[in-house]
Amino acid sequence: MSSIAEKVVAGDIRTVARLIRDIDDGMPEVREVLKELYPHTGNAYIIGITGSPGVGKSTLVDQMVGHLRQRDKTVGVLAVDPTSPFSGGAILGDRVRMQRHSMDPGVFIRSLATRGHFGGLTQSTRSAIDVLDAMGKDYVLVETVGVGQDEVDVVRSAHTTVIVVIPGMGDDIQAIKAGILEVGDIFLINKSDREGADKTVSDLRLMIEMDQKKYEEGGWKPPILKVEAVFDKGIDEFLEAVDQHAAYLAKTEGGLDFRGNRNKVREELREMVKARLLEEALDRLTKSGEFDRAVELIVEKKIDPYTACEDLVLPVSKQ
Amino acid sequence: MSSIAEKVVAGDIRTVARLIRDIDDGMPEVREVLKELYPHTGNAYIIGITGSPGVGKSTLVDQMVGHLRQRDKTVGVLAVDPTSPFSGGAILGDRVRMQRHSMDPGVFIRSLATRGHFGGLTQSTRSAIDVLDAMGKDYVLVETVGVGQDEVDVVRSAHTTVIVVIPGMGDDIQAIKAGILEVGDIFLINKSDREGADKTVSDLRLMIEMDQKKYEEGGWKPPILKVEAVFDKGIDEFLEAVDQHAAYLAKTEGGLDFRGNRNKVREELREMVKARLLEEALDRLTKSGEFDRAVELIVEKKIDPYTACEDLVLPVSKQ
Repeated sequence: MSSIAEKVVAGDIRTVARLIRDIDDGMPEVREVLKELYPHTGNAYIIGITGSPGVGKSTLVDQMVGHLRQRDKTVGVLAVDPTSPFSGGAILGDRVRMQRHSMDPGVFIRSLATRGHFGGLTQSTRSAIDVLDAMGKDYVLVETVGVGQDEVDVVRSAHTTVIVVIPGMGDDIQAIKAGILEVGDIFLINKSDREGADKTVSDLRLMIEMDQKKYEEGGWKPPILKVEAVFDKGIDEFLEAVDQHAAYLAKTEGGLDFRGNRNKVREELREMVKARLLEEALDRLTKSGEFDRAVELIVEKKIDPYTACEDLVLPVSKQ
Repeated sequence: MSSIAEKVVAGDIRTVARLIRDIDDGMPEVREVLKELYPHTGNAYIIGITGSPGVGKSTLVDQMVGHLRQRDKTVGVLAVDPTSPFSGGAILGDRVRMQRHSMDPGVFIRSLATRGHFGGLTQSTRSAIDVLDAMGKDYVLVETVGVGQDEVDVVRSAHTTVIVVIPGMGDDIQAIKAGILEVGDIFLINKSDREGADKTVSDLRLMIEMDQKKYEEGGWKPPILKVEAVFDKGIDEFLEAVDQHAAYLAKTEGGLDFRGNRNKVREELREMVKARLLEEALDRLTKSGEFDRAVELIVEKKIDPYTACEDLVLPVSKQ
């Protein structure tokens, strides 16, 4: 093993921090380190937490860290979002919330801010999870914001995916349907002291039951739980539900080992191949000047973009 | 021209509807039609409307359609989102909102629901905009939900991008920073009768002024406007701001013609090439069985996914 990989496995904070930053920056060198770390992965339990802005994900994650630490578990947190309180981009200052864990060597918190990279957030997140896993964290919490495809892809890397909503936003429930419903293993109504919490529970239950056929075949039926993260209410029950989901997963194909589950591996490899293909091929088209020539032809109205695209791609892919 | 392209240019509703569905379904045949339609594009004014779930985008779009129709303009609406009231997936029934325009031949409304396709929403949306443009719509309104990278990419196709927020969601403003702030040409505070509207205006102003250097160099300074879409308040002022932005754009490189603007063309072509590369290359790796063999090797722990990815990609890209 290289000294970098060795230091990661030994839990060296500075090496891990730097490696994750390099992953976030899309440095190609990290690939060799990730290969070396691979045999040391597969031990962490990964929990994805997603939901719209303002539902209180950071507070929830903060409480989860506290409760997991009480159980003597080590925890890594990845805040996958440039707007996160943990990222440099935060302007509203609730970064302080997590500060109570900042001196605890059992907790490691990092944000991933990359956007627009080839492979993007999904790829960076998977790699960063591998690093926290290899460094020996018992749990890795991945916090993502929003309801976009990026977020759906990101949470697919988790063992348990938690969807957080708040009461009284009918449209929010509707938004959950956008690919998120299918990936939700646990639904949390946060700020459940607010008006409309029961309505939100019943709306969610209705939507989940529309998928009932899946559950009748012995699948996991996502529980809907009420919490008040800011008052530390309901967190234990929530973590119990995570345990139950873990127990359920342990009985499925590949168990808790993602890389033993053919479907998960297929998904992951497809993402990686996509990212890598784009990087290599676009790099080549750009360096050769072909890409810029095509741009000029379109601007000069000598060709339409659909044909220009074909002219660029077909020579590559027809070989 | 093929009869399909001819019918689109003639404004045949059924042909357009079918073509957009084929685009949404990722049918390769549509490419030839899009090439034929290309010389007929470049005339529509494209407005992107984005914001988190629950901010009232659908109501706003509905009012915009009404006002544009009063000006005798024809309007195409693309609701880019499986959760949209216009899409088949809608369950909360506010699809009815737009029904007042459903009998108006000057209005054409379609949703795009594609997710997970190669190239995804961005590519489908650009193609669908081209179709509505070629069919002769004066305005194309593109409604997208959320704050993910997908949505940012989608709104880049618009002449004017409108970011909709509601008062009192501090975190929402924060979320806007995630790549959306830079693409916003107009900010709308909807439901501005609610408490906190002025605070939201000043928060936004602060964030926009952080980018001030750009505006000092003669760039467009995004106005922040208050509206109450449900009461039809402020829509005229909003559409005037759109007109002003259009006048500003007309003086920039390429003017209102995206395909005359080198940067826009570069962006679009990059997206198209990416989508096409993935389609061709992944298709080949799948058909040859190489992809499935790599999956098996990973599941059997004979190889790590990072190495497997390299083995798949390098032979393709090194040629």
